[in-house]
Amino acid sequence: MDQALFEFCLRMGDNTLVLGHRVSEWCGHAPVLEEDIALANTALDLIGQTQLWLGLAGEVEGAGRDADALAFRRDAWDFRSVLLVEQPNGDFGQTILRQYLFDQYQALMLAELVASSDARVSAIAQKAAKEVAYHLDRSRDTVVGLGDGTDESHTRMQAALDRLYPFVGELFGEDDLDREVAARGIAPLPASLRAAYDAALAATMDEATLALPDSRWSQSGGRDGTRHSEHLGHLLTEMQWLQRAYPDARW
Amino acid sequence: MDQALFEFCLRMGDNTLVLGHRVSEWCGHAPVLEEDIALANTALDLIGQTQLWLGLAGEVEGAGRDADALAFRRDAWDFRSVLLVEQPNGDFGQTILRQYLFDQYQALMLAELVASSDARVSAIAQKAAKEVAYHLDRSRDTVVGLGDGTDESHTRMQAALDRLYPFVGELFGEDDLDREVAARGIAPLPASLRAAYDAALAATMDEATLALPDSRWSQSGGRDGTRHSEHLGHLLTEMQWLQRAYPDARW
Repeated sequence: MDQALFEFCLRMGDNTLVLGHRVSEWCGHAPVLEEDIALANTALDLIGQTQLWLGLAGEVEGAGRDADALAFRRDAWDFRSVLLVEQPNGDFGQTILRQYLFDQYQALMLAELVASSDARVSAIAQKAAKEVAYHLDRSRDTVVGLGDGTDESHTRMQAALDRLYPFVGELFGEDDLDREVAARGIAPLPASLRAAYDAALAATMDEATLALPDSRWSQSGGRDGTRHSEHLGHLLTEMQWLQRAYPDARW
Repeated sequence: MDQALFEFCLRMGDNTLVLGHRVSEWCGHAPVLEEDIALANTALDLIGQTQLWLGLAGEVEGAGRDADALAFRRDAWDFRSVLLVEQPNGDFGQTILRQYLFDQYQALMLAELVASSDARVSAIAQKAAKEVAYHLDRSRDTVVGLGDGTDESHTRMQAALDRLYPFVGELFGEDDLDREVAARGIAPLPASLRAAYDAALAATMDEATLALPDSRWSQSGGRDGTRHSEHLGHLLTEMQWLQRAYPDARW
């Protein structure tokens, strides 16, 4: 079993799964109908990407687990998603800022993965990159609009940035697994994307009249599964309820 | 199988289970330490009573389901708890008012059940009545203290009463099941407790300087399982998580 590729796919798929579920929590609750539909579509895209990443993870593992089994039958400690995506939705501004912080990273990562030495990874990246380009356009524009908006929206967006920025650094973490998949040409070292990310973030925040926190200290423990926050367990409890209560139920 | 006695035990046990779980949600979150401990103890009493009621229900059913199976492996539509107890905690005042509205009913019910024609029901009632007498003392005093307190606490308690009073009437519902257990001397008709309840409630609210709503219209559908609110499903999802994810796990 190719442990490194398996774990890499979990990291990609768990990010989109957890964020997709979070975004889906807005369904029927967004501030305006247009945003409600846009958020639901974003969530659907992310869950669709999850099917591809976790489907490949299951194929690589070769133990009979498919994407559904990996999504609905693992507990918190087996998840490899970054802490950023499990953070609660907060208000709409916090949700859209979390989305932007992730989209900006994801767009850079997928652009590199298109050239992956693994053809399956490359194929998923090509499909996902188109969706994420659209997500990024939208989340970036909305962050700018709300940051450079009213006093109220500006204050909220600055609070959201102060709250979420300490989760950005984990996106660029590096461990033995990252080094192995990079050495094999499967994926770039996340740290190699940081300069481009920082430049994009600085430009966006400047336009949004938002101030990036001085400290680049970052939380960590999600992508290696060692320290997820309490939020993930509650999210999984809701997300996995049907499969847990009615195992193998069919339509 | 004695269907009427089985369902009666479910109604008693599901009330204490759902309310016990709701109250336990305060654990570690109450406004002061003393209240945190008091709420946790109340929750434990209620869960203890649940073990007795659902244990008897399982014995009556004779199908091999024990209290744990009934608590953790039924879905919302099989619950027979009144809608009052599944209402969200709200603020501390709303929680304590919900508790008072239930305690006042439960104290009257248990006092009658002590004389039940079924010795097992009588034994449970004797044990539970002592605990509930204490719960009632406490919830009543706190409702009076907060109702006749500051402007802020008074306003919140009045809002809680307006919010929760429409769930009181269901406590005194009557259907074929109630008539059967009453005819057999197992339990009183709930409606026979209403006058004493109303008198106690009026005295308490008078002392608390709170105004009972004019309308006695009531929600219903919990105690017969036909119309639980959306809240119950979320509560059960959290409460049943461990048993659903790790069936038959042992310490």
